[in-house]
Amino acid sequence: MSVNEFEIIARLTASLPSNPSVVVGAGDDCAVLDVGIPGSHLLFKTDAVVEGVHFLPDAPPEQVGHKALARCLSDIAAMGGTPGSAVVTLGLPPGRDSAWAEQVYTGMSRLAEKHSVAIVGGETTASPDRAFLSVALLGQVPQGRAALRSGAKVGDAIFVTGELGGSRAGRHLAFEPRLAEAQWLCSQFDIHAMIDLSDGLAGDLRHILQSSGVGAELLADAIPISRSARLAAKALHGTQSPLTAALTDGEDFELLFMVVASDAVPLLDRWRMAFPQLRLGCIGKITAGPGVHLRDQNGTRPLTNHGYVHFQ
Amino acid sequence: MSVNEFEIIARLTASLPSNPSVVVGAGDDCAVLDVGIPGSHLLFKTDAVVEGVHFLPDAPPEQVGHKALARCLSDIAAMGGTPGSAVVTLGLPPGRDSAWAEQVYTGMSRLAEKHSVAIVGGETTASPDRAFLSVALLGQVPQGRAALRSGAKVGDAIFVTGELGGSRAGRHLAFEPRLAEAQWLCSQFDIHAMIDLSDGLAGDLRHILQSSGVGAELLADAIPISRSARLAAKALHGTQSPLTAALTDGEDFELLFMVVASDAVPLLDRWRMAFPQLRLGCIGKITAGPGVHLRDQNGTRPLTNHGYVHFQ
Repeated sequence: MSVNEFEIIARLTASLPSNPSVVVGAGDDCAVLDVGIPGSHLLFKTDAVVEGVHFLPDAPPEQVGHKALARCLSDIAAMGGTPGSAVVTLGLPPGRDSAWAEQVYTGMSRLAEKHSVAIVGGETTASPDRAFLSVALLGQVPQGRAALRSGAKVGDAIFVTGELGGSRAGRHLAFEPRLAEAQWLCSQFDIHAMIDLSDGLAGDLRHILQSSGVGAELLADAIPISRSARLAAKALHGTQSPLTAALTDGEDFELLFMVVASDAVPLLDRWRMAFPQLRLGCIGKITAGPGVHLRDQNGTRPLTNHGYVHFQ
Repeated sequence: MSVNEFEIIARLTASLPSNPSVVVGAGDDCAVLDVGIPGSHLLFKTDAVVEGVHFLPDAPPEQVGHKALARCLSDIAAMGGTPGSAVVTLGLPPGRDSAWAEQVYTGMSRLAEKHSVAIVGGETTASPDRAFLSVALLGQVPQGRAALRSGAKVGDAIFVTGELGGSRAGRHLAFEPRLAEAQWLCSQFDIHAMIDLSDGLAGDLRHILQSSGVGAELLADAIPISRSARLAAKALHGTQSPLTAALTDGEDFELLFMVVASDAVPLLDRWRMAFPQLRLGCIGKITAGPGVHLRDQNGTRPLTNHGYVHFQ
């Protein structure tokens, strides 16, 4: 997402109409609604993927369907929720093979079944130039237990799942949303704040910091860098470091979250038992001072607004 | 919507994943979900408008926003429901004035406020060639009281609100969804089946007939023809009759519904008291024989599959 898009969204969502059911409106990973379910809040999210923007025309259509739903599932995960039902609008350009559309649905349905998600609406519309796929997803979370962006506290430990960067090489079409992991986290620990990484670690961390009114210090050596990010850096002959890729590449769809510092060690211990296959790293701490700072063997330096590592 | 689109949707939605919360899945105006609200079911719908398809590039952006939300509200109305919260994705082409996007939101927000709808998510995405606006909307309906497409019974009287045809001249951008009227109908009468007219009377009636396993006979003289449809017919010098326009033009967004014949007169009487400004017409009856037939002074003749009046 570009800077300009962030600004447009901020302006558009500054004063949206509300009603008494709204617990959390636009601006978190999902909206949180009290619709009268005893002990439970509804989660509500929409997202779209556009051909040529979020997937290339030659992307396997099953993966396009997978990605469109997985992005919304990742937002439900980021609230600690359980997904329920989805509705879909598929924009189809003239002459697009109907087998393409069926394969999109195959990929989407396979992922839906895996997470007991019902697809309860399937609209199609003409889209003259290129395909798009818009998904809206409902979920539920125990009342008062949604992991928001706004709860990070000074001194909290910052954690991230998986390895970051280089998603464009393929992972962005095939990633598995971290639903089980997020539900486990929220049931076992007091997660102060959580977000899924769609815009890159530096950008998404900043969303949490702004919502929570705090800053952060990241440990450069602790940032988990993916093999794809290292390979891409090698191919670029040093014009972008693997660390910068891990900090700024989008579409990792890993979980970034904060817990009180005293929970950090027990969390790491119990995580290894629960999810031995998935890396979990403590990558820094929440600070009172604003902005994001990066600490390495040379000291501490600020990250610029959109993740680029500014060498002083 | 073209024939081909109907076929694609039918194939895509033939075997979608489900779960125990689904009361009515894809194929009605909205999905109906039991998410654990005592005495109430959730309604869930999505819809998109695409520049050059559902609105022209020079359409006033407030009206584009109005239309996008109104289409979903009309689907909630067609179930007899009350709308709750909406999430939105706005696809923006490069260089599109951000004032355009703000005006889209102004139109959408104005309509939302009128119906106490909260807008709880406002995504934007790049859309290289043209704008689109995808809306997903939640609503509620008393448990077991949703007006489905599948309940029409032989002998039922067929009613339609308003006047039909010629919506393209402007009404499609400015129509008011029939929420109050539909809620009144469902609270006062046993509405056997209901749909909102988006594809044209003949096409949408056929959706009800197929879902209910019945046929229908329409009275040509009773079909309410809009002034726009008459003007358009005049401009076309008789190549399309006003009646054909009223039967086949899309985007009327009026309510088409069926009640037991003995309710017809009391319904008309009480409607005139409740909604004196809005025409309500009894336009025919449900039959055991399949298909749609049109009766006029020359007798009865079948309508072809997509509404064209076939003169024998």
